[in-house]
Amino acid sequence: MQCGFAFLEAGSVRSKNTTNVLIKNALDVFIGAVAYWLFGYAFAFGSESNSFIGYSNFALAYVPTDKFSRWFFRFVCAATAATIVSGAMAERTEFKTYLIYSLFLTGFIYPVVSHWGWHERGWLKKGITTIRFSFQDFAGSGIVHVVGGTCALVGAAILGPRIGRFVKGKPVTIPGHTVPMTALGGFILFMGFLAFNGGSQGSISNPGDAEIAAVAVVNTFISGSAGALTALFIKRIIPGAGKNWSLLTTINGALTGMVAICAGCDAVYPYGAFVIGIFAGVTYILWSAIILKMKIDDPLDSCPVHMGGGAWGLIAAPLFNNKTGVLYQWNKLSFYIWGWNILGLVVIMAWSAGCAIIMFGSCRLVGQLRVPEDIEIKGKPSIITIIME
Amino acid sequence: MQCGFAFLEAGSVRSKNTTNVLIKNALDVFIGAVAYWLFGYAFAFGSESNSFIGYSNFALAYVPTDKFSRWFFRFVCAATAATIVSGAMAERTEFKTYLIYSLFLTGFIYPVVSHWGWHERGWLKKGITTIRFSFQDFAGSGIVHVVGGTCALVGAAILGPRIGRFVKGKPVTIPGHTVPMTALGGFILFMGFLAFNGGSQGSISNPGDAEIAAVAVVNTFISGSAGALTALFIKRIIPGAGKNWSLLTTINGALTGMVAICAGCDAVYPYGAFVIGIFAGVTYILWSAIILKMKIDDPLDSCPVHMGGGAWGLIAAPLFNNKTGVLYQWNKLSFYIWGWNILGLVVIMAWSAGCAIIMFGSCRLVGQLRVPEDIEIKGKPSIITIIME
Amino acid sequence: MQCGFAFLEAGSVRSKNTTNVLIKNALDVFIGAVAYWLFGYAFAFGSESNSFIGYSNFALAYVPTDKFSRWFFRFVCAATAATIVSGAMAERTEFKTYLIYSLFLTGFIYPVVSHWGWHERGWLKKGITTIRFSFQDFAGSGIVHVVGGTCALVGAAILGPRIGRFVKGKPVTIPGHTVPMTALGGFILFMGFLAFNGGSQGSISNPGDAEIAAVAVVNTFISGSAGALTALFIKRIIPGAGKNWSLLTTINGALTGMVAICAGCDAVYPYGAFVIGIFAGVTYILWSAIILKMKIDDPLDSCPVHMGGGAWGLIAAPLFNNKTGVLYQWNKLSFYIWGWNILGLVVIMAWSAGCAIIMFGSCRLVGQLRVPEDIEIKGKPSIITIIME
Repeated sequence: MQCGFAFLEAGSVRSKNTTNVLIKNALDVFIGAVAYWLFGYAFAFGSESNSFIGYSNFALAYVPTDKFSRWFFRFVCAATAATIVSGAMAERTEFKTYLIYSLFLTGFIYPVVSHWGWHERGWLKKGITTIRFSFQDFAGSGIVHVVGGTCALVGAAILGPRIGRFVKGKPVTIPGHTVPMTALGGFILFMGFLAFNGGSQGSISNPGDAEIAAVAVVNTFISGSAGALTALFIKRIIPGAGKNWSLLTTINGALTGMVAICAGCDAVYPYGAFVIGIFAGVTYILWSAIILKMKIDDPLDSCPVHMGGGAWGLIAAPLFNNKTGVLYQWNKLSFYIWGWNILGLVVIMAWSAGCAIIMFGSCRLVGQLRVPEDIEIKGKPSIITIIME
Repeated sequence: MQCGFAFLEAGSVRSKNTTNVLIKNALDVFIGAVAYWLFGYAFAFGSESNSFIGYSNFALAYVPTDKFSRWFFRFVCAATAATIVSGAMAERTEFKTYLIYSLFLTGFIYPVVSHWGWHERGWLKKGITTIRFSFQDFAGSGIVHVVGGTCALVGAAILGPRIGRFVKGKPVTIPGHTVPMTALGGFILFMGFLAFNGGSQGSISNPGDAEIAAVAVVNTFISGSAGALTALFIKRIIPGAGKNWSLLTTINGALTGMVAICAGCDAVYPYGAFVIGIFAGVTYILWSAIILKMKIDDPLDSCPVHMGGGAWGLIAAPLFNNKTGVLYQWNKLSFYIWGWNILGLVVIMAWSAGCAIIMFGSCRLVGQLRVPEDIEIKGKPSIITIIME
Repeated sequence: MQCGFAFLEAGSVRSKNTTNVLIKNALDVFIGAVAYWLFGYAFAFGSESNSFIGYSNFALAYVPTDKFSRWFFRFVCAATAATIVSGAMAERTEFKTYLIYSLFLTGFIYPVVSHWGWHERGWLKKGITTIRFSFQDFAGSGIVHVVGGTCALVGAAILGPRIGRFVKGKPVTIPGHTVPMTALGGFILFMGFLAFNGGSQGSISNPGDAEIAAVAVVNTFISGSAGALTALFIKRIIPGAGKNWSLLTTINGALTGMVAICAGCDAVYPYGAFVIGIFAGVTYILWSAIILKMKIDDPLDSCPVHMGGGAWGLIAAPLFNNKTGVLYQWNKLSFYIWGWNILGLVVIMAWSAGCAIIMFGSCRLVGQLRVPEDIEIKGKPSIITIIME
């Protein structure tokens, strides 16, 4: 998926920044892997832990080999979360800042949230045990995408827009330079989502595992398709948007649908996935307009896709769940679960926003957040020209 | 595989149409997914059915979860069939027509054929039960590629050639704009075929399933290689073709070999796959020349690859089958099976051609088939320029 | 992986040679598949064999179907080895030479080595049976990468540098033309390595197989990350290298780390993989400088990555092995194993170098090794222009 994000981003920024984007996304993965190996996994899934955080198995020490596939899979989520942020902050962030937040996001912010929601001793997963319910986020609508999207929003806000993005308060479109590269990124991401949501079962050796994976894949596909078609259709009919078919809208609509279904993709009916996808498309268009109104410059629409889609996914999963869903059961327990998921969403957003404010705020205080104006305008020749030596 | 086709096509058309091709291929998948979910799967694999068509389980309702992987896999075939057509009709078709035929092909034409040949109550699969034989099309040489290739041929014929393709009756080469993109598409497609033919077993949980998948993958690789080398070699030795090594010939030769082996890839010996691949390479060159003679403009050679290769695959599978093959058994039953496969091929081609004539003919009657001349010459600026807004 | 190499190479050579590189890499696979099917597999894994070479099951005849997955997986290794060579010899080698060495490498040089090290009757795998130890090369640090890298070094040396690479004895940088394509190649290769090292177990049906695959994947990721960060860091701090972040250094550092971990990725602790990766990064930088000093022109740094990384991998595996490692056991047996692996390395290098000298030397003698000077300067128009006919 990292690969997909890299190309989606590389194709959507201006040509002068392409290499920069690609090297950032490569380093992202490598630094993230080291951070997640050294302490991220320990914070998230350490065998000794309280309801807030784990504190053993640093550097994967003493982890039995049957848990290693979990390391890999959860690390891919971590790298995904980090890359979401890079999309929103593209073309104007200091290289060092980029490396620092990759480290913190992959090594601390995300692992703590994943401990809450995916580890049996995390407070969100445990729920209130006497009533026996639990947080519903199968593949990370909240734990991955809301975390990444919220940090991205805070980062983009603290960072400020690119030069020339808003002229006298009006948004100016800065076109990307390569449509095929953007499309390649999008296609790779779709594949990534299918593997990601299908693989979230984490195992195919128990009876029933393969079936859950298949259900997750089918729901992901249907929700993504509904999101893409809805976003495209809205863009066509709303006045002032131009009578055009937009490739980026299609891709982002599909991604929003896939983000939204993450939370419940193992446990909703296909028509539930379809409805979730339709609302995800609407969500994407709305959030995109809101963020533009707030004069936050998000070159790839990362926040609408991941924060908007992820939030809707957490809200939708307990509504459409085929066993406990509010729409089917309409009883006290189903409403409790719904409320618990919404509480989880609020806490995750608050935690992510808080951490991001501290992180990006500190960088800004020491003057390391944003590249100097002349480099932003020229691109970074130092990085662009030395590739083949 | 959709991704591979998208780039093969995007790299092979002229630059002005790149975005158009990519957005079409993306929408193709999304519309196809909705169509195949709503009624395609029901027509093909509905639990209530007669020998012609299924008529239950619309929108995947009441489908047990262990069938969900079949939905996904058969849908990928459906999207493949739709994309074959897009290749042959590239650069001159109305956007709306494109969406309409995606819907019909994925939602009706292909599902009906796949019911015939892959569902135990379909007439082709049932065979004539007293003699106990059956249609041999393991991974869709006929059910996917002949269907797509025939529709593509009819579509390209009704549509007419691109402006400038034939000048005073002589073909003029219209070069594509990006070789690496074409190659990327080709490489992705090869991977897709391996996954596709290997995955056609549909399951890896029963004993022997993994072995059949491995046999299918090996045969696919050998047949594709034989097809590529044969096509390349013929191009070199025939007079007037120029003493050149052509990348597109290599890729298309390999694809034809892979299409041809689909029908029998689970049940032929590796040397059988090699022979099938060699004849596939010959088939590709012949069909390519015939279609050019017929003055049909097929920018990517989709018809030779898929219709030519698929037809040869249906004919070859019962010849080389390692249990019932005509070449090994030479008895009444093996000839019956061969005849049945050829009958199947004829009926599939007639059905596909008939549907395609009705579909594209209607579009032409209402004047929605082809883009206006000025847009064909200029490219579609409306679509190309608005990508990043 | 072939796909990844193709793009890494296509992006790193000059624009005039792009098509040439892509068609070479496609033919590489197809010729390799035929060669490995006809005799490569028989030499490597034929059921009748001595300790040097196998001599039955030509053309996969009489091979039971449960061995077919091994054919595919070992063939991918073979194609990898062939492509390593193409990287080092890019932009100046005759097309025919390319096809001949693909044939020999895939069909003979590599199969013989893989018989030695991976077949139970090969002399390296058997070891000295009375003491019960064996060659440790799980996923081919030596059997794939040292073979490929050594042939590449010999080939590049016999071939001589590109025109303009060394002016008055000083190296001149010849920049590649497309950074995103190089990056795409790199990303695809990373995915390939994960699949490759994870899949080297060759089976997921026995208990414990999935765990070994997961361990291999995690170690590959950690070692690659360590290699990338180390190489990048060294490049920054050494004087005269320029204060730059280089994408190609990052990618090559990561690849070297992944090559080095191949030999032991099933059997080292994650921190062992980290240490192996750090030294791999150092190895890459050192070998890269040595080869430049020797005035050998290796456009993609294939030799440092594959020969350097592979040799270090063979040396490191018996040091860090979590059961028999020298660092943990410090006894006679562990030193025997270490010595045996180093002996294997020396013999593999000698065999590969010897075969390569005969092969490329003969080509040079008959004047078929290098393209004429004018074609090297202009690129190959005959191949570039005929793609879309």
